Amino acid sequence: MTGRVTSFDVAEAAGVSQSTVSRALRGEPSIGTETVARIVAAAAALDYVPSDRARDLSRGTTKRIAMVVDLENPLWSLLVGRLHDLLADLSYHLTLIAGHPDSEVLDPALLGGGIDGVILSTVALDSTLPAILQRRSVPTVLLQRYTEGGELDSSVADDRAGGAASAQILLDAGHRRIGALLGPRNTSTGRDREAGFRECLADAGIELDEALVRMGSFDFSHGYESVSGLFSGETESPTALFCSNDSIAFGALNRACELGIAVPGDLAIVGFDDLEQASWATLSLSTVHVPFDDMLHSAVTMLMERIAGRTGLGRRVIHPVYPVLRSTHGD
Amino acid sequence: MTGRVTSFDVAEAAGVSQSTVSRALRGEPSIGTETVARIVAAAAALDYVPSDRARDLSRGTTKRIAMVVDLENPLWSLLVGRLHDLLADLSYHLTLIAGHPDSEVLDPALLGGGIDGVILSTVALDSTLPAILQRRSVPTVLLQRYTEGGELDSSVADDRAGGAASAQILLDAGHRRIGALLGPRNTSTGRDREAGFRECLADAGIELDEALVRMGSFDFSHGYESVSGLFSGETESPTALFCSNDSIAFGALNRACELGIAVPGDLAIVGFDDLEQASWATLSLSTVHVPFDDMLHSAVTMLMERIAGRTGLGRRVIHPVYPVLRSTHGD
Repeated sequence: MTGRVTSFDVAEAAGVSQSTVSRALRGEPSIGTETVARIVAAAAALDYVPSDRARDLSRGTTKRIAMVVDLENPLWSLLVGRLHDLLADLSYHLTLIAGHPDSEVLDPALLGGGIDGVILSTVALDSTLPAILQRRSVPTVLLQRYTEGGELDSSVADDRAGGAASAQILLDAGHRRIGALLGPRNTSTGRDREAGFRECLADAGIELDEALVRMGSFDFSHGYESVSGLFSGETESPTALFCSNDSIAFGALNRACELGIAVPGDLAIVGFDDLEQASWATLSLSTVHVPFDDMLHSAVTMLMERIAGRTGLGRRVIHPVYPVLRSTHGD
Repeated sequence: MTGRVTSFDVAEAAGVSQSTVSRALRGEPSIGTETVARIVAAAAALDYVPSDRARDLSRGTTKRIAMVVDLENPLWSLLVGRLHDLLADLSYHLTLIAGHPDSEVLDPALLGGGIDGVILSTVALDSTLPAILQRRSVPTVLLQRYTEGGELDSSVADDRAGGAASAQILLDAGHRRIGALLGPRNTSTGRDREAGFRECLADAGIELDEALVRMGSFDFSHGYESVSGLFSGETESPTALFCSNDSIAFGALNRACELGIAVPGDLAIVGFDDLEQASWATLSLSTVHVPFDDMLHSAVTMLMERIAGRTGLGRRVIHPVYPVLRSTHGD
């Protein structure tokens, strides 16, 4: 398609009138939800920029940043307060756009203007939103996870090195029968933490028993249920568990407590992220520290550069991580 | 002042030109932060409604609700996911407006339109924002806390009864030397939970030793530091602690663990809210259950009624609470 995409093109693609497109993107209630979804999808596919968004672009700034968060991953709630303060220092307001992953419904606020830039905090490797925002020239930075293709700036942790460090903690504590409660492989965090973990075991000549590996979400219930399964008596249990994040580790730790499995005596557990609760004396979780403040700083710096007009390929800033040895990894 | 307030009135009050007012409220970067703050304050004092907000009001709806959250209180992060889902069922989008309590800077999004209604989740009794929104006829519901005056709808828990229930748990477990780690008295939750707690002790003929009472924020550090102080050996320590919320209780519990104070043997602890972590086996906190889902449902229902045009005085829906006896209250 040549020339500027207009609302008439969107209307044709969506099979509605131009006035319906205008009214839908303004959020008028008379348009049915399904029609709105079809129009938003068509607008996204065509990279349509509504005129008010175009006006915002020409005017330069709205002093507002949107953070898109995945409500199913609690990590964002730890980041948003610090992000708010960083942006406030730069006289920017923060709007959170809340959604569930892989939702079919794109929030019209991301299409309709009113924002200067976007921070995406929990994308999957195959998320479509980054490419949509990039084609529409919305300054965007990925935080905590990157995507394949990588033409957007991203600020992430060294998840691969962290996975290896976590495995090394357990090897150093003498463990050889090590299980793994892994996060989703369609996320950079899940994939890279697993890769580092496996590489470290392989380098040490330890064979990973795949019967001790469980895939799941980055949440408490994954850890909780996996420990139930691994200690059901059907197979030989592991003596240690690598968990792809602290939430999984908390689930494992609490289920072990319920089952009377001593940690670390009967079962060593190592997490990843170093959430605030990991340092609680009642939990005292050994984990891998992720420098969230540094990640946020880099993300905001890169976003401001993009808003100021920087062009060119995306940069990936990888922040170092380090092990934190508390009580759960071994004696 | 008679007649509709215009941007010229705001300009006069703020001591700037009308075009500066327009540009400031559109968020243009050329206006300095202090000038913007002065203009926003003047606009709020005069109940100025910008023309785009007036257009939204006449158009009826934007299908967008704003939730204003206090970033220093982690409770909102538990509510926002459920609120998002409730609103999505009604085809509404959710925008979070993040701020710190008693900030001088009012988010222009609340003045500049683009939203149908507001849910305020963590106001203080003397917060000015509820009255500002009410005078501007923005449909608004208070969630979890109410304000003095009470002309807005609110959906809250029975904090007074909960405070009494919590005291009763400790009395029933045989405690007489009971301390209290209380939340801020300028919040309805802090004030009413304290009132219920004191009333129950008084009804039982137990005198509260004020040396065992600590005021503080609704956070972990309040509980953590208060236990340090109460067990410093300077005075006789309490055998039980009433905590105004679970975050305070987690701080107390973990500091007790660090100091080798057995819970509940040496020190009983009772929280308030029944956060997810309270049920973790490693913590097993006895607490008072607050029905957050019911509170959210009522808040959304009342907000939709206001958006649909309901007028009249504010209602206060008070949801019942009940004690949850786990491991920390006594034997």
